[in-house]
Amino acid sequence: MQILLTVAYDGTNYAGWQRQENALAIQEKLENALSALLDRTITVRAASRTDAGVHAMGQRASFFAPDLKIPIAKLPEVLIAYLPQDISVTAAEVVSEEFNPRFGAVQKTYVYNIYNAPCPNPLLHRYSAFVPRPLDLSAMQTAAAFFVGKHDFAAFCATGGNAKTTVREIFACEVSAQPNGLISLTVTGNAFLYNMVRIIAGTIVYAGLGKFPPQQIPQIITSLKRENAGKTMPAQGLVLMEVVYALSH
Amino acid sequence: MQILLTVAYDGTNYAGWQRQENALAIQEKLENALSALLDRTITVRAASRTDAGVHAMGQRASFFAPDLKIPIAKLPEVLIAYLPQDISVTAAEVVSEEFNPRFGAVQKTYVYNIYNAPCPNPLLHRYSAFVPRPLDLSAMQTAAAFFVGKHDFAAFCATGGNAKTTVREIFACEVSAQPNGLISLTVTGNAFLYNMVRIIAGTIVYAGLGKFPPQQIPQIITSLKRENAGKTMPAQGLVLMEVVYALSH
Repeated sequence: MQILLTVAYDGTNYAGWQRQENALAIQEKLENALSALLDRTITVRAASRTDAGVHAMGQRASFFAPDLKIPIAKLPEVLIAYLPQDISVTAAEVVSEEFNPRFGAVQKTYVYNIYNAPCPNPLLHRYSAFVPRPLDLSAMQTAAAFFVGKHDFAAFCATGGNAKTTVREIFACEVSAQPNGLISLTVTGNAFLYNMVRIIAGTIVYAGLGKFPPQQIPQIITSLKRENAGKTMPAQGLVLMEVVYALSH
Repeated sequence: MQILLTVAYDGTNYAGWQRQENALAIQEKLENALSALLDRTITVRAASRTDAGVHAMGQRASFFAPDLKIPIAKLPEVLIAYLPQDISVTAAEVVSEEFNPRFGAVQKTYVYNIYNAPCPNPLLHRYSAFVPRPLDLSAMQTAAAFFVGKHDFAAFCATGGNAKTTVREIFACEVSAQPNGLISLTVTGNAFLYNMVRIIAGTIVYAGLGKFPPQQIPQIITSLKRENAGKTMPAQGLVLMEVVYALSH
């Protein structure tokens, strides 16, 4: 049978999700935990191959196991003892043999956190980008709304991606001030290009700094040119919050 | 002149506030930063000598400097380049020569954060204690209220303290559920005994777990016996939020 896990992690100390030579990946830690618990070599497939330093609350990863001697609902708690403190499995469910955690995803939500104050906040530092110059929240909110819709996001794609098309659909894109002092950008879409959320965040930050008016966003999108968008924000501010699948998995 | 700083830090990687042999302390990092910036040996005195692993948002520390070539208001921003990412100076002001940051404090506020869920949250782990068994929030709120007032807190003091009296006054003691999923205990008092907040937190957690009814708290206090109170909660959940001084400093 195939089992689908919900995985949360602090990505600070990892070279990203994907297992690789000469660097520690979250996939490797999770596979080692599952392999030790189930006493066989387990390979997992994830919904999203998050980059080095990126965090997750709702990553999804699945694996095949011929049998499971513990109730599936107990799997997350049993795995606590096998995982480091910066990785946690928070849910587990049985899915069909045909289910693919990557290609089956119909919607993903990311949050990008920014700490905007003259001096850093050490308790928020690991999970946010520090921006010392004052940001215009209202301008950022106006800028964010322009990203909603089906667009060619070629201007918001880092080189190194291998997507066949750069057209993606953004369902929601909102900026809000949090009670703990963070400014959070929440983006929901059908799929994302390489570094897309971090470049959107950088472009919205530029609007917040007054580098260009928010109304210029549509032209930046239609230009299809990476150099017209803002800079790629650092990985530490990004959290993969949720992956949604079609009902019948 | 004497300068009073507000200091924030992630205490995870430090042996506590106080400078010591063979272990890295926050005081040492701050003194090194000030000494490098001001080009003389600077010694700081703090409001509170927080323990290993304890965090701060509003620690206060003062030092003497014969002159300062930069405007005092710019000092926090200038210090960013001299401090590691887990320590930040967020404010600076001139105080009288007689001011003492420890003995001048008339009120301190601590927050103790608890993450209560079946599995850990890696993004909250550094700044909270993980309690997997379900907690009764209402029982914890009832328990917390009993700590308010002037009491002999001998039952809430770890051995190793050197206080002349164990009488302290708690002005406010409240438990609340935060939007991010944390349960936060906020305690404000005139002063605190060694490990006092962590033992109060542990006692309130015991009430939340149903180990005894909240109404038993007054008897635990008047017993003056450490063994009647709850366990000392781990350092990582504790944050020194604020130190208040009398107006005329």
